[in-house]
This record gives sequence, structure tokens and C-alpha cells, in this order.
Amino acid sequence: MSPDACRDLLEEAFRAAVAAAMPDNILAPHLPPRPQGRLIVIGVGKAAASMAQAVEAHYGDHVEGAVITRYGHALPTHSIDVLTAGHPVPDTAGEVATERLLGLLAGLGEDDLVLILLSGGGSTLLTAPDGITLEQKADLTQSLLRCGADIHEMNCVRKHLSRVKGGRLAVAAHPARVLTLVISDVVGDDLSVIASGPTVADPTTFGNALDVLDRYGLVAPEARRRFVQGIRGELPETLKPGDSLFDNCETKLVATNQLSLEAAANRFAAAGVRAHILSAGVTGEARVAGGVHAAIARQVLTRGQPFRPPCALLSGGETTVRVRGCGRGGRNGEFALGLALDLPPCAPTFALAADSDGIDGSEGNAGAWVTPDLFRTVPRDRARRLLEDNDSYTLFEEADHLLFTGPTHTNVNDLRFVLMLDS
Amino acid sequence: MSPDACRDLLEEAFRAAVAAAMPDNILAPHLPPRPQGRLIVIGVGKAAASMAQAVEAHYGDHVEGAVITRYGHALPTHSIDVLTAGHPVPDTAGEVATERLLGLLAGLGEDDLVLILLSGGGSTLLTAPDGITLEQKADLTQSLLRCGADIHEMNCVRKHLSRVKGGRLAVAAHPARVLTLVISDVVGDDLSVIASGPTVADPTTFGNALDVLDRYGLVAPEARRRFVQGIRGELPETLKPGDSLFDNCETKLVATNQLSLEAAANRFAAAGVRAHILSAGVTGEARVAGGVHAAIARQVLTRGQPFRPPCALLSGGETTVRVRGCGRGGRNGEFALGLALDLPPCAPTFALAADSDGIDGSEGNAGAWVTPDLFRTVPRDRARRLLEDNDSYTLFEEADHLLFTGPTHTNVNDLRFVLMLDS
Repeated sequence: MSPDACRDLLEEAFRAAVAAAMPDNILAPHLPPRPQGRLIVIGVGKAAASMAQAVEAHYGDHVEGAVITRYGHALPTHSIDVLTAGHPVPDTAGEVATERLLGLLAGLGEDDLVLILLSGGGSTLLTAPDGITLEQKADLTQSLLRCGADIHEMNCVRKHLSRVKGGRLAVAAHPARVLTLVISDVVGDDLSVIASGPTVADPTTFGNALDVLDRYGLVAPEARRRFVQGIRGELPETLKPGDSLFDNCETKLVATNQLSLEAAANRFAAAGVRAHILSAGVTGEARVAGGVHAAIARQVLTRGQPFRPPCALLSGGETTVRVRGCGRGGRNGEFALGLALDLPPCAPTFALAADSDGIDGSEGNAGAWVTPDLFRTVPRDRARRLLEDNDSYTLFEEADHLLFTGPTHTNVNDLRFVLMLDS
Repeated sequence: MSPDACRDLLEEAFRAAVAAAMPDNILAPHLPPRPQGRLIVIGVGKAAASMAQAVEAHYGDHVEGAVITRYGHALPTHSIDVLTAGHPVPDTAGEVATERLLGLLAGLGEDDLVLILLSGGGSTLLTAPDGITLEQKADLTQSLLRCGADIHEMNCVRKHLSRVKGGRLAVAAHPARVLTLVISDVVGDDLSVIASGPTVADPTTFGNALDVLDRYGLVAPEARRRFVQGIRGELPETLKPGDSLFDNCETKLVATNQLSLEAAANRFAAAGVRAHILSAGVTGEARVAGGVHAAIARQVLTRGQPFRPPCALLSGGETTVRVRGCGRGGRNGEFALGLALDLPPCAPTFALAADSDGIDGSEGNAGAWVTPDLFRTVPRDRARRLLEDNDSYTLFEEADHLLFTGPTHTNVNDLRFVLMLDS
């Protein structure tokens, strides 16, 4: 395969993976007939606008509803309102928009159907603090992050300070039937984590939430007062597994990292290249994860283990960047550079690491390419120094190895493909 | 398979991997007949004493020679002297011992054979600074490390300040025939890196060495003066590829991480478990590398990708620990804990991460176990805090999950085996 053909194949595989997560391709088979009563569509997340478009296209004429997406991610719709709000820091626009969604759910009956469209970013955009101000809640979230609380501890606390999270949005829709369609950007696709599970059960309690505050020695008087009230039974708990209200609720994962990796694997197979899905859930520091992928690629190239070349290794998930320097570039750039630096010179290996949402971090690129001649343009030692400065963007820009797709209006997290040819 | 059987299989695989690197098992087929002239045996490295023992056992009676190993790693021998010196910081005992080795090489003829036994740690133990004091050289090494110089830059500088490195030990043995047998603890098994390549060619020059000093803005007046002299042709260069002196030199890798992984794979296969070698060269931060292994294990368990369970994933290499806290434990402990924390609760997965030399870092254990019930003894949140404090040893000690083997007197780096059962 020529270098151009390799790059083309990787890009086509990426486009196939993104296509497998695009609402207009995937929502229709999951959409039920119009109900006897009213059909209300609400939604929240980075993909909310494109999900709303797909719903409108499916039902043909007027659809009642509103969705919240982040600033700059709105798309034109006919009858479903697209509201915008702040992300990743929640703002009052999000609060106002959430009230609007709750208003749409008021006074529904058993014959009505609420279609809820969830995607990544929903936790922030869907915000209805309960017994605490938005600012206090944001401060508490920041404190928990600083203490090293994990996502489960964070969500336990936040769900117990919200009128919509932990299944409470389903309560608001009662007694209407609820169908929640989910595009997952969460590693492991845990429905109680995506958008903080507004329509799924939450096994955690006010007592657990208080334990988290105690564990990290956080004062947070408003939250603490509320949790104690909850423990005394003065406040309603989040919805627990087995609650009869869920008899009326259904939740479906319509797009996941795994489904996108499989679409990519099919694209490689169509080109006669065997693709192996290593994992849909690789996390941890981006450059190190990239280095481990390089170690496996070296084994493929030199030993034909665990797979014989030519072949492709696919992985997904969400890595992190440890900020040491002051350069530019996102986690996919760091992953790609960590990978490239751990490959032998001129190894017959091409790779693409990119964010399925089309934006890798804060720059405009979706991701970056690795090719055998990458370090011909930018020498290896300069590349190492750029990586030390978290400046992968500059390197890939100088090498003309950035991938630009623009926002894709969906998000199933990161995608990385490593294509190894016969030596 | 019962939990005990799983642990037994992992431990047997580890023992098989170590056995594949033990001099008494592997050296004999590589040892030539006694030469017409004298047979001189010299050696250096952590495995030098056990290599000397194997050589003595092979030739039966008196063998002339001396080897250098680190303090505490000596073993009883009959006629080959075992000298000890400082590691990882070189000391004057190493200088004196190196002089002793050079003395053994003086005045040899064409009918003589020099057998050189190399293993990890040799770079430090074999020390003959040239035109610079031991202390100045140690300072320079420290400065290079602090600047982030890589192993190739370090070696380029050090080889040009030595009377033994970069092929110069082969020069000292000339005109005798030289056979070098190598146990590799270097990822990639680059012969010019192991013990700084005392008997192999060095393509780098005095000019390259000066470039490294300039690149990092290091003053180092003695080294600088020497490199300039070298550039002017006033000093002999390291031995270059193609030098006719190598016609008389042969080098063989007798033990590597790859060979040990293959021995382990055979042990799994004998038990009916398919083993897949991911890579013999996984590097990077230990806990992140462990997390990537866990991500692949999750994919195996939940999707049967890229392999169907039951199966084992094997990898080797050398990770690093980023010190943040003040706890105890080596890189294999951190790897194992990073792996364990990224597995789902009670996942039917057993793992062993251990150093083939039998000592994981500064404690007495070789490595640590991961079992499905690990977090029954030590809760997950406590485990996370212990990892934050680099205190994996305490965790695995409390859980009784430490592996103790004692020093193995060989070293092919780290070995990790992950065994996944059917769910």
C-alpha cells in the first residue's frame, strides 16, 4: 500500500467510525411510532442538536420539544427549540434552559411519550441545583476534583443536589412513557454516569454523599445540611433500582465507542486489512498510552506477535493530558506523539488518533497523523522537547500532520487506529 | 480453574520465564571448546556471578578470569574471581575491579580466547574513566539525566569518556578472539546499549558527544576539552562499524525478555491456556501501562476481543515510577495496582507483575499478585490513596499479595502475565 493509500484508509476508517455515531444514520430504527397522546422531545448534550434534527426528519412534521447543547453547537431545526448553555462550566443559561425542559414535562398523561436525547456534556448542561446555588455547586465540584474524588464520588454528591439527576428527570415526566436514547462518551457506557443518569436508577444515598464530603474533609455547609435532611427522610431520595416508575421507562444506547470501532474495523476489512480491537476503554495519561500502543506495534513488526502484519490495532476511550508545559494540543495529539516517539525510525507504521467530536482539546483539529517520515520534517529531539512542553499541536502543524474535520456534532470519545505494514 | 490453580499457573509461568534466563540452563550451548591458547573469562553485571558459575561448571576444571557484580550479588566460584562494586552509583571498587579485568587482557595472542559475560548493570560496574575523574563523570551523568537527555545521548557522551566502553574492551583484548555472551535487560536488546557495548561498534563520534553537551548547555570543562581533542584527532575514536577488529569478535544474546516471555507462553499452553505476547518492550509510567493492560483485559472479558477468554496476555519491558508520595514499592507493584484499579469489581482476572531479577525496587519482593478478591481485604478507595502515595507495597502486603523469590541472579527486566477466565 502506498503512503497515500494508508492515510486514506485511516481517514476513511475514522469517517466510518464517526458515521456510526451520527444521529441521522442511527436514530431512526430506535424511534417508536407517534403515541396516542403527545410526543415531547427533550435532550441535552453536545450532540443534542443533531439528534433533534434526526428526530424531526423521522417524524416529518411538527415535533414539540427543546434541547440544550453547548454554545456554538446549535444547528437549524424546524420545531424543536435548540437552546445553548455553558460547558464545561455550567452557567445560568443552562439553569434557565433546564427549567424550560422541566416545563415541557409538566402535566403529561399516561398516553404521552417523552423522548429524551442524551449525549456527552449533559451533566453540565442539564443543571437544576436543589437547595444550593449554581455557584456553590460549581465550587463543590471543583473542590472534589482537587481532592482527587473519582467520577462515582462526584456523581453521588451531585445527584443528591439536583432536581434532574439520578433518575429525577424521569420522575418529572411521570406518568408519561419515557424513552431515552443515548450517545455515550463515557468509558464503559455506564448509563448512570452519562449526563448523570437523569432517567436511570441511582443506588447511592444521601448517606453516601455525606460520606464523600467527610472522606475529603470538605466543609460545604449547604450540601452538608441537605444531605443530613435527606438522611432524616425529610427529602426524597434519588430513584432506586427496582422503582416501579421505571416500568414506564426504557433506555437505549444508540452510539458507543465500541460500535464506532467496529465500523472502523469493517472499513479496514473491506480494504483487506485485518483490524484488531484492543479496547474501547483505554484511559490514563495520553503519551504513555500512546507508548504502550507503540510497544505492541513494535512487537507486531518485529515478531509478528500478537498479530502478523499487515494489520491494524484499534482502540478507543478517553486519555488525559498531564500539563507540564505551556504548549498547544489535545490528548489525541499527545497520544499520537507518544506513539510516534516510541516507534523505530521509519517503521512501516501509519496511525491516526482523533476525537470523534472533531475537536481535539482547544485547537481546531480533530487529531493527528503518524507516518514513517514524520521525523524527517521535525527531528526527533525537537519532537521530544515539544512533547515535554505539551506542544504536540506545533509539531503536527509543522509536519502538516493535523487532521481537520470540523465539529462532527456527535461524540463517542477518542478513536485511534494504528496500521502496520509488512516490513 | 480454581483461584489457587490460577495463582499457581501464573507463578509457574514466572518461574519458567526466569529459568529461561538462568545461566546454568542456557549458557552451555553457546560455549565454544577450549582454545589452543589461553581461555580468559571476564564479565560484568548483576548476573556476572551466576554466569561465571555456569562457565566453570561447563569447562570442568580451572578457568582463569574475574567478573564484577554488584555488592551482595556474589556467589561462590572455584577459580574465577568474583569482585563486587557499587550500583547504581559507580564507585572506586568498580574502578579497581575494571583495572583488574583489563590486566587479564594484557599480552594475549591470536590463539587465546576471551569470553566476556555481560548482563544488566554492566555500564556502571565496568568503569574506567578516561581523562576525567570518576566523580566528574558521575556529576556529568547526573546533569544529563536532569536535562532529560535520553539513553542514546547519555551513552554517546559516556562512551567518549571511557577506556572500556564503545568497543574499547575488544581493543584491549586484541589480538585474541572475543566471544561476548549477553543477558539483556535493555528494552529492544540493543547490543551497543547493554553495558555500554564494550565489545560492539559505536557509530557516534567525539563531535556527537560535544553536540550533546551544547544541546543541554552543559559546561563540563574536562569532558569538553577531551571531546575537542578527539575532534582534532588527538585521541582514538570509539570502534566504528566495519572495523576489521570485529572480524575476531562475536556477540550472542543468550537471554532476553522475549525468550522469557516465550517460555512463559509455553507454560500457559501446557496448561491449556492460550497466551498472547503483547510486547516485550512496554515502557512508560507503570500505573498507566497497568491501566492499559486492564483496558485490554476488560475488552477480552466483555467482548471476547481481541482474544476470547480464557487466555493470558503477556508483556515485558521496563516501566518507570513517577514519585509523588513517600510510600514503598517498585514499578511492578505500581503496574499491578494500576491494573487492579482499572478492572471491574470481582472480574475473573488474575495477574502477576514481577521483576525477573527477583527484586522489585528497593523492597524484598519480586512483584505482586492481582486476584478478583484483592479489594475485599483493602477497599478500593484506600487502594487509590495508597497508589497516590506510591505505596503499592503496603497494599499488597496487607492483602498478602506479594511474591517473594529472593534474588534470581539473572535479569531480563519486568514480566507481567494477565490471566482472564470465562465470565
